[in-house]
Amino acid sequence: MVTAFLVGLITLNVLAVILDSVEGIYRAYKPWFDTFEVFSVAVFTIEYVLRLWACTSLPAYRHPVSGRFRFALTPLALVDLFAILPSLLTWGGIDLRALRVVRLARIARIAKLGHYSKALQLMASVVRRKRHELAISLILMFVMLILASSLMYVVENEHQPEAFSSIPATMWWAVATLTTVGYGDVTPVTGIGKLLGAFIAIFGIGLFALPAGIIAAGFIEEKEDDSNTYPSHCPHCGKAIDKDRTHP
Amino acid sequence: MVTAFLVGLITLNVLAVILDSVEGIYRAYKPWFDTFEVFSVAVFTIEYVLRLWACTSLPAYRHPVSGRFRFALTPLALVDLFAILPSLLTWGGIDLRALRVVRLARIARIAKLGHYSKALQLMASVVRRKRHELAISLILMFVMLILASSLMYVVENEHQPEAFSSIPATMWWAVATLTTVGYGDVTPVTGIGKLLGAFIAIFGIGLFALPAGIIAAGFIEEKEDDSNTYPSHCPHCGKAIDKDRTHP
Amino acid sequence: MVTAFLVGLITLNVLAVILDSVEGIYRAYKPWFDTFEVFSVAVFTIEYVLRLWACTSLPAYRHPVSGRFRFALTPLALVDLFAILPSLLTWGGIDLRALRVVRLARIARIAKLGHYSKALQLMASVVRRKRHELAISLILMFVMLILASSLMYVVENEHQPEAFSSIPATMWWAVATLTTVGYGDVTPVTGIGKLLGAFIAIFGIGLFALPAGIIAAGFIEEKEDDSNTYPSHCPHCGKAIDKDRTHP
Amino acid sequence: MVTAFLVGLITLNVLAVILDSVEGIYRAYKPWFDTFEVFSVAVFTIEYVLRLWACTSLPAYRHPVSGRFRFALTPLALVDLFAILPSLLTWGGIDLRALRVVRLARIARIAKLGHYSKALQLMASVVRRKRHELAISLILMFVMLILASSLMYVVENEHQPEAFSSIPATMWWAVATLTTVGYGDVTPVTGIGKLLGAFIAIFGIGLFALPAGIIAAGFIEEKEDDSNTYPSHCPHCGKAIDKDRTHP
Repeated sequence: MVTAFLVGLITLNVLAVILDSVEGIYRAYKPWFDTFEVFSVAVFTIEYVLRLWACTSLPAYRHPVSGRFRFALTPLALVDLFAILPSLLTWGGIDLRALRVVRLARIARIAKLGHYSKALQLMASVVRRKRHELAISLILMFVMLILASSLMYVVENEHQPEAFSSIPATMWWAVATLTTVGYGDVTPVTGIGKLLGAFIAIFGIGLFALPAGIIAAGFIEEKEDDSNTYPSHCPHCGKAIDKDRTHP
Repeated sequence: MVTAFLVGLITLNVLAVILDSVEGIYRAYKPWFDTFEVFSVAVFTIEYVLRLWACTSLPAYRHPVSGRFRFALTPLALVDLFAILPSLLTWGGIDLRALRVVRLARIARIAKLGHYSKALQLMASVVRRKRHELAISLILMFVMLILASSLMYVVENEHQPEAFSSIPATMWWAVATLTTVGYGDVTPVTGIGKLLGAFIAIFGIGLFALPAGIIAAGFIEEKEDDSNTYPSHCPHCGKAIDKDRTHP
Repeated sequence: MVTAFLVGLITLNVLAVILDSVEGIYRAYKPWFDTFEVFSVAVFTIEYVLRLWACTSLPAYRHPVSGRFRFALTPLALVDLFAILPSLLTWGGIDLRALRVVRLARIARIAKLGHYSKALQLMASVVRRKRHELAISLILMFVMLILASSLMYVVENEHQPEAFSSIPATMWWAVATLTTVGYGDVTPVTGIGKLLGAFIAIFGIGLFALPAGIIAAGFIEEKEDDSNTYPSHCPHCGKAIDKDRTHP
Repeated sequence: MVTAFLVGLITLNVLAVILDSVEGIYRAYKPWFDTFEVFSVAVFTIEYVLRLWACTSLPAYRHPVSGRFRFALTPLALVDLFAILPSLLTWGGIDLRALRVVRLARIARIAKLGHYSKALQLMASVVRRKRHELAISLILMFVMLILASSLMYVVENEHQPEAFSSIPATMWWAVATLTTVGYGDVTPVTGIGKLLGAFIAIFGIGLFALPAGIIAAGFIEEKEDDSNTYPSHCPHCGKAIDKDRTHP
């Protein structure tokens, strides 16, 4: 009940920020948006205070002072705080120019779904489970990115001084190419540049497809762990089976 | 026989709608198209009536009235109805402006293949089998989409007020980037915008590749379920077969 | 030895056709190209005749006449014939306008590698092994393609009469989007069109990634079959094990 | 300690080359860059000399002269040499025009990370493990590339003489399409050209996605080899464990 209500409220908040950004809609329904904003912040503030007050019921944060303090520093608690702080501060009085950014900062409230969304929790545990693979592939991707940009910079810089003005600038082309997004706003024009670009595309995109493959694999594994779990104890003698020990 | 005829007729109908849309061809062969249309609708109407009349032979819909009624509300029955209704109504008399849309609505007849096409049925069961994974990845994709659009909107809005006029408008860029389609009709121009875009592309496309991976996995599983489940024990002597030992 | 020579000759032929198409190079080295062409055709003709003469040694084509005839109709034999016929006919005398096309038709000689290339044979057997899956996914892709094109045609036709002049024309956009190639030469401009395009991209690309996934899976399986093969007979009683029979 | 220092120094060098290429930054901090360069080359030279001096401790290169010589020809040793040689030669005196290229050649120092980076070593062993599959898919890709380019050249050459001036030139379009990068700087304009392009895209991209799939698979296998090989028999009582039976 309460959960459903909070999830709905968070979703509505995100929706509000999105519609908010459409000039017409915002001007037309300003009062409604503002009222809704006040209401949301009120609810989220109460939620935050209650969480802070109730956390002592958890053994980990039993101590009334230091426990609550440590609880306040947990990621989700910080998210909850950040979701309300900007608005509270604004009403405390900040010049208007900041307002728009503050309005948009509310999009961060989507992170509050972390309390309830199985999807976000699953994603988090997939990333944790595959952190080594992901880290390695990221390193490989950046090495590839640097090499591709440097080479293309040397080749194209003279012919397109603006588009390929420096290696960092060339990285924009390299990312667009290696991810196969390929906007086409920047492309090599020289023969050698196109040849190099072709080789980079053919041999490089495999690297940038790695994370997708790793996440998909981890994602499917994660789901499978719920179904067919492997016996943790021998069905014959009942002794424990060490999953990680290798048997050649 | 009848099946083959109906499948052929449906295919021809779809083909007709497609060619129909080519001005030249339509004007040249209008009478043929119209005759074919009348013929098709006649056949489909007869088919629909027969299905409705015969459904009582199915235990689930035995009751002459309520059974037929419940049958008429099954997805495929509704598809059959929707495939003929517009044309029938048109002849009943509707102003001509609607005609073109009606002519195109006939494309929905492709759904009638659901009666016969193993492909569509397989796809349906794959989606059913993986609905949880697909739902979760859709949630993740939309969270990613919202965050990417909001951030890019904040960064680029001032420099490209038309292209990035609002968060919903920015989503067009975000979808093109995260799916790696990358039309290039809208791209960030500021340095910070390109940096942000690069990070979104590198870290985001993995999420949007998830459904493809999930569908492919489910698709292959689905096929495997029909064939090669391998015996873990010899069917003749019942002794266990060591799966890992290789037999050259 | 002979194999290596023929593979080399075929590769050189393909290379020749490619360089051939570069105006400058062709004009500069015309005599060399022509001499090489005569030489190649001579060798390939001899090869073809020898194959036809020797085929009777194969039990399947033992009969001197009908056997040779049936052999001449095998795919690879036809490829060999098609690789020499155009050039032979040209020298027999055909007006020059056809020449350029004939010169390019020689690219088909690359198919002669089917005699030797393990890669092409592996690919062929992967396609055979997965023909059902591939056929099904092709059907799904074309259904998706037709639906996407029809819907987008209805939405964008009025605003971009040339780019989206008909459903077949709109398919160019649909293919570019669903394969994530995204040239960007044709893109929806209306709000509803962009919304529709976004949905098509998000939900459609999964289908068009299926063949890649299927081929990759079949490709890896194919390689694995060489290594860990499963016992075709029970190691205990030696009776045959039916791989396809399912044991619940 | 020393390792961390060297890794850091290499990273800083790569960073320096990248910033180096930004005109503004380079002009502003030239002295710093030059000092850092001298320092780096000094360190790398010492490192190289020490490696060469110490290599005799390895049994493989025990011999003082021939051993050191053979060691100097190992890939990593050559990388180390190439990382310092250009700068040393420049100071020996080379005209300034070469300088910029030399400065960029230093990017090759990133290869020195091969001494320390597990990521690069893992990638190398994945490529080794899957070299057959990768080689085969490369062959298939190039055959596809040649066929696609030749066909499209025949179709589009007359209508776009510059963009599709020759088969090699058309390959730029073919690579952009088959890798799904799709810059859109070159696209077919004729109806038949678009039809051909659509078929190439639909049937070709599967081939160019193979390496990504192969690398991802090999990557995951490589990681799995370290962890979780599961016992097929209970380590305590030695009885077989039925992998398929589920234990809730």
